[in-house]
Amino acid sequence: VLGRRARCGCQLIAMPATAAWQPAFADRSAHVRASEIRDLLKVLDRPGIISFAGGIPNPQLFPRDRIAAELSAIQQHQALGPAAFQYSVTEGYGPLRGWIVQHMGSLGVVCDIDNIVVTSGSQQALDLLGKLFLQSQDTALVARPTYLGALQAFNAYQTHYDTLNTGSNAPTVATYRARAAGRGGRVSLAYVVSEHANPTGTTLPLEERRKLLDLSEQLDIPIVEDAAYQGLHYDGEPAISCLSLEFQRRGSIEACRVVYCGTFSKTVAPGLRVGWICAAKAVTRQIALIKQGSDLHTGSLSQMLIYEVVRRAYADQVAKVVAVYRRRRDILLDALNRYLRSDAQWTPPAGGMFVWVTLYRKIDAADLLRSALETHNIAFVPGAPFYYNEAEVNTLRLSFSLPEEASIAEGVERLAQTLHTYKPSEPHV
Amino acid sequence: VLGRRARCGCQLIAMPATAAWQPAFADRSAHVRASEIRDLLKVLDRPGIISFAGGIPNPQLFPRDRIAAELSAIQQHQALGPAAFQYSVTEGYGPLRGWIVQHMGSLGVVCDIDNIVVTSGSQQALDLLGKLFLQSQDTALVARPTYLGALQAFNAYQTHYDTLNTGSNAPTVATYRARAAGRGGRVSLAYVVSEHANPTGTTLPLEERRKLLDLSEQLDIPIVEDAAYQGLHYDGEPAISCLSLEFQRRGSIEACRVVYCGTFSKTVAPGLRVGWICAAKAVTRQIALIKQGSDLHTGSLSQMLIYEVVRRAYADQVAKVVAVYRRRRDILLDALNRYLRSDAQWTPPAGGMFVWVTLYRKIDAADLLRSALETHNIAFVPGAPFYYNEAEVNTLRLSFSLPEEASIAEGVERLAQTLHTYKPSEPHV
Repeated sequence: VLGRRARCGCQLIAMPATAAWQPAFADRSAHVRASEIRDLLKVLDRPGIISFAGGIPNPQLFPRDRIAAELSAIQQHQALGPAAFQYSVTEGYGPLRGWIVQHMGSLGVVCDIDNIVVTSGSQQALDLLGKLFLQSQDTALVARPTYLGALQAFNAYQTHYDTLNTGSNAPTVATYRARAAGRGGRVSLAYVVSEHANPTGTTLPLEERRKLLDLSEQLDIPIVEDAAYQGLHYDGEPAISCLSLEFQRRGSIEACRVVYCGTFSKTVAPGLRVGWICAAKAVTRQIALIKQGSDLHTGSLSQMLIYEVVRRAYADQVAKVVAVYRRRRDILLDALNRYLRSDAQWTPPAGGMFVWVTLYRKIDAADLLRSALETHNIAFVPGAPFYYNEAEVNTLRLSFSLPEEASIAEGVERLAQTLHTYKPSEPHV
Repeated sequence: VLGRRARCGCQLIAMPATAAWQPAFADRSAHVRASEIRDLLKVLDRPGIISFAGGIPNPQLFPRDRIAAELSAIQQHQALGPAAFQYSVTEGYGPLRGWIVQHMGSLGVVCDIDNIVVTSGSQQALDLLGKLFLQSQDTALVARPTYLGALQAFNAYQTHYDTLNTGSNAPTVATYRARAAGRGGRVSLAYVVSEHANPTGTTLPLEERRKLLDLSEQLDIPIVEDAAYQGLHYDGEPAISCLSLEFQRRGSIEACRVVYCGTFSKTVAPGLRVGWICAAKAVTRQIALIKQGSDLHTGSLSQMLIYEVVRRAYADQVAKVVAVYRRRRDILLDALNRYLRSDAQWTPPAGGMFVWVTLYRKIDAADLLRSALETHNIAFVPGAPFYYNEAEVNTLRLSFSLPEEASIAEGVERLAQTLHTYKPSEPHV
C-alpha cells in the first residue's frame, strides 16, 4: 500500500518503507473517498447470486439494433460520417439540443437551444455545477439520504452539507444562513432528485416543490434538479418538474433559478454518456466555458446516436422500459409484503428503480450485507453511503431494474432468511 | 446581454434592466473566460476560405469503415453488445487498458493495468490532474506560449503561472518557490507538451528533459507530460518521453513523478473522446476516485471501438496519418520559405500539426486576422491566447492538418499579401 498525504497534513494511510513517490495532493483531494458501492459491485458476477445492488438499467432494454442501424446510416452519410468522429462544439450537437428544446417544451418549459448544454451524463452536470457554484467551505443543501454521486461530485469542491427540509419543521432562511456561516461559507445551492429519487424512490410533493422555490428565491441560490428518473413513471399523474413549476411562476426561463439536469442513461443507454443541463443562459453560457476546459465536448458519435434514436423512438423506448420496470416493482413490493412485513418498512415508489428499506432492528446494513453474501448469496446496497453525515445504518436500497422477474421473490425470501439468522460481526479491533 | 457577477465582486458585464436571474458564481468562475479560438472557428465554413486555424485532425484520415465494422461486430457479440451501452468501471475498459500497457511498454515504460486510467480525451486528464494537484493560488509551471486548453483546465482551480525554463538561464529552485509563495501558494505541478507542441511545434531536447526531471525532484512536484502529438513524428529519431526517461532513472513507475497523458484523438478520432493517464498508482488511484465524481466513466462504446481499432491497426493508422501530414508540412514550409522569408521567422517542426510564426513587424496578429479574413479569405490562430501573461502579439499559429495540399501554397501567398497591404485598425475607444 502506497502512502497518501493530504496537504492539510492528515496522514491518510501509513507510509511504508519504499522508494515509491508520495505525492502531495491539493486539500480537496482528502474529501474524495472510495465508494463502498463501487467495491461492492466487484462481487456481483458470482454464480447464482440474486442482486438488488446495481442501480443500473437493464441491458436487455437497450435499443441495440436500432443504435447499430443508426451508426451504419451515420457512417455512410457524407456530412455526418466525418463529423461523428471529429471534434465538435462544447455546447453539444445542434440537432440533439433542438430535440431537447422540444422535450423541455413538452414538460412546459419554453426555452431555446442556448438554454441547453449537452453533458457527459448527468454526473458531469453535477460536477460542472459544483465547479460553477460551490466555493470552498460553502454549504450545499441536500436530502438525507441523497444520491451518492452528487456528494462525490460536490465533495471535490470542499463542500459542507446541510439537510434540505421543505417540511413543516423546516429551518428558517436565517438559520440556514447562520449555519453555513458557521462552517465558513454560504449556502450556495440546493440539490434535489425530484422524482423517484435515488436512493429513496420518493417524489417531492407539489407543496414541497413550492416551498423549495420560495427557499431558492429567499437564499438567491440555484436549485440543481436531478431529473434522472423523471421518465420512469409507473402510476398516476407524473409530478410537474421544479423547473416547469418555476417557469409557470416567472414566465421566462431566464428568470428561473432551477437548473434542470436530464439524462438519456435511464431511458436509452448509459454507456453512451449523454445528459444535459437546461437553465437560464446566464448559467448555460458559463457551464459551456467550464465544460470546454473539462473535456472539450461530449462524444460526437454518442450524441448523434442518441439523437437518431430519440427523434424516431423516444416515446416507444420509454414505454418499453416503463412496462418492464413497473412489473418488476410490483413483484418486489408483493414479495416485501409477503416476507419482510414484520422486519422492516418501506415506501412504495411510483417510478424509478429503487425501494428504500428501513429495518426495525438497529442492524448495520453493511454488516448484514456481508452476511447476506456469505450465507444466502444475495446483494443490496447498504444505506450509509447515501448520508452526508451520521447515517441511519439500518437502511438499505433494493434496485429492481436488474434481477430477473422470476428471481425477485426468491431474493426477498433470502433477504428475510438472512435477517432471521443474522448475528452481528465481532467489531474489528 | 445578461449580467454576470463573480463572487469576488468584479462586475464582468454591465447589468441590464431585466428580470433575468443574476447568479452569483464561485470565485473560480471569474478565471474561466471565453476562448478567442472558439469564436474564430465559427467563420471557418465560409466558401473559398483557406484556413490554417483549426488545430484538429483531418477527418479524411479517420478509420470510419473500420469503426463501423467493429461496431457491427460488437453489437452482435453476446457479452460485448450489452456492455457497450451499459455503465462501466471508472478506470476504463480492461482490454483497452491492457493494450495501453503494451503501448507504454513499447515506449520503455514497464507498468501494469492499475497504472492506467482511461480519460474522456486528454483534456479531461488535464482537468482531473488540476483538481488533484492544484490548490487555490498555487503556481503551475508552463511554457510561454503553451496549449490554451491546459490553461483553461487549470484556470478553474484559481491557478497562477510561472514560466517553465529548462534552459541555461533557468531560475533556481529557490526562486521558483519564492515567486510562488509571493502569489500565495506553492509550485504544485509543471506542464509540458513534450513533442511537436501545440502551438509551437517544438520538441523538448533531451538535455532539457533531464533538467526538467531534476527540477521535478527538487520541487517534489509532478510533471504533467502532454504527449498528444508524440505519435505524429515525421523526421529523424523520435524523442524519448519524459516518463520513459524517468523510468530509466528510477527503475519503477511507482517512483516516477511524471504523469503521462496520452490520447487517441490525433491518431484515430477525437470525436470518440478517449485518452489516458499513465502514472504511479498513488496518482492513478486518486485520479479514478476524482473521475468517478466527474463523469463516472468514459463512454463504454467509444472505448471498445478504439480498442478494436488500435489492436488491429494502430501502426497502420499512424503510418497513414504521418504520411499525409508530413507531406503537408513540407509544402507549408516550402511556401513559407518562398513567400514569407522577409516578413517572419518560424521553427520547422519535426512532427505534429503546427508551425509557429513570429512576424518581424510588431503587428497584433489578432488584428491581422481580421484583415486576413476580410481581404484575403484566409484564417490562422493569433498567438496571444497561448500566453498565460502578457503575450507576444506578433505571433500566429499555422495548422497544416486540414487545408488541402493544393491550397496550402496559395494560402501562404495570401498571408504574405495580407501582410504587405495590412494597416493596423483604429484602436477601439
